Amino acid sequence: MHWRVAKPAGSACGRVSLVGAGCGDPELLTIKAARLISSADVVVYDRLVALEIVALAAPDSERVYVGKLPRHHSVPQSEIETIMLRHARQGKHVVRLKGGDPFMFGRGGEEMLMLREQGIEVDICPGISAAFGCAAFAGIPLTRRGVADGCLFITGRDQLGELPLAQGEGSLQKLTVVVYMGVSCVADVSAALIGRGLPVDWPAAIVQTGSVAGDQCIVTTLGELPAMVQHRKIQSPALLIIGETVRDSGQMPVGQVSQMAGMLTD
Amino acid sequence: MHWRVAKPAGSACGRVSLVGAGCGDPELLTIKAARLISSADVVVYDRLVALEIVALAAPDSERVYVGKLPRHHSVPQSEIETIMLRHARQGKHVVRLKGGDPFMFGRGGEEMLMLREQGIEVDICPGISAAFGCAAFAGIPLTRRGVADGCLFITGRDQLGELPLAQGEGSLQKLTVVVYMGVSCVADVSAALIGRGLPVDWPAAIVQTGSVAGDQCIVTTLGELPAMVQHRKIQSPALLIIGETVRDSGQMPVGQVSQMAGMLTD
Repeated sequence: MHWRVAKPAGSACGRVSLVGAGCGDPELLTIKAARLISSADVVVYDRLVALEIVALAAPDSERVYVGKLPRHHSVPQSEIETIMLRHARQGKHVVRLKGGDPFMFGRGGEEMLMLREQGIEVDICPGISAAFGCAAFAGIPLTRRGVADGCLFITGRDQLGELPLAQGEGSLQKLTVVVYMGVSCVADVSAALIGRGLPVDWPAAIVQTGSVAGDQCIVTTLGELPAMVQHRKIQSPALLIIGETVRDSGQMPVGQVSQMAGMLTD
Repeated sequence: MHWRVAKPAGSACGRVSLVGAGCGDPELLTIKAARLISSADVVVYDRLVALEIVALAAPDSERVYVGKLPRHHSVPQSEIETIMLRHARQGKHVVRLKGGDPFMFGRGGEEMLMLREQGIEVDICPGISAAFGCAAFAGIPLTRRGVADGCLFITGRDQLGELPLAQGEGSLQKLTVVVYMGVSCVADVSAALIGRGLPVDWPAAIVQTGSVAGDQCIVTTLGELPAMVQHRKIQSPALLIIGETVRDSGQMPVGQVSQMAGMLTD
């Protein structure tokens, strides 16, 4: 990568940039993020940040890994905050590098408020969130005129029952529903959306990019999502995309293929 | 900008890349988009794409402006499609450069389907959509644990009445609602969201970045949104962000300031 930018001479006072590293492909980093990383004194980075991106940090910078493994919080949030504060108070420019976008399910809001409360200057550099990286990879438009007039981004972790989704047939069908962190609770997600009026055979996709397992998009139906996650042994991070534009991927639904095979044998 | 990439020698067959130029700041372009633009034979670009980004195109490339002005469709969509097809069939690599992200309210889905139907290879490069660029600029998290558990992205142009939003108090309060293209119909947007249970004094922001008018974020309330758009003579493109995390911007609501002034004079 040829876009390292020269580091400016010493900064007068410390500050923190909350920077989105984008989703998957390291090339989905923004030019601005690359500039901030390469000029930072300290880079504090998460598990899902590509090593090619961390490698943009200047040779004399300090790199601090604070990644969390699922069900294994390697560095507690309070310690991450302490690390940022300590370096910023020493007059350093800290880049807090987060997978995706810092303001979308990334605790960026919490960290911004904490830093501001402590009197530390903080700025935000957006990143390509998983929904956009996965949609582009899979060829699934997040919106399309007359088909999907909007998008709902939720997590599987939250109480789906509390979401303001109208009951009744047809109500959710004009939105693309994107579920972050939905793999471990895919049965709940599937049941909740069916309970709110989406058909059992509504198009659904499981999309992974930039994961250890490699890039893949599995097209299935809302009803078959839980079985598919289990059968293909899908692990997080993976995104669920539910909506009519899943058909635009041009991929044949796996469920439909198995049904067709069944029909041929019968 | 120092990240121009060498153009590879002649491509064997034509193809089209639908590329997101990001929102506002030209530095919010991704590395991948910069590479695609600088190696393209033809760049077909919209009105909202920064000139610094178009300037990345190789000197011997063809640049085609197909921007639409509001209420003045300079180039019809059918002609844009014809332009892309003609160049791709001549074996060229066409970059279709769109503001924001191609799959979010950008007709990218339609263009992908049309190209694929015509047998043209097409790939998608995501971009920073306005919601992320504006949220980062304004310091308004799109989600925050316990405050905003998800995000709803809609346009003001569509029939808000058809959206699957539950009626009743409190139902929408756990989401951040982002309205694209909402300025010209801000009164409808405001009324629709209040009609679905959001309080009249619910936090709302009007955010513009990369516009001719310059970057600005105006914090107000849902009820005062229409008056504020009129009073400040806000023109598109501008994004409306409605939700409790608007408070995180740290900006005092304009409405509240005027009320306070009123209280002091009373």
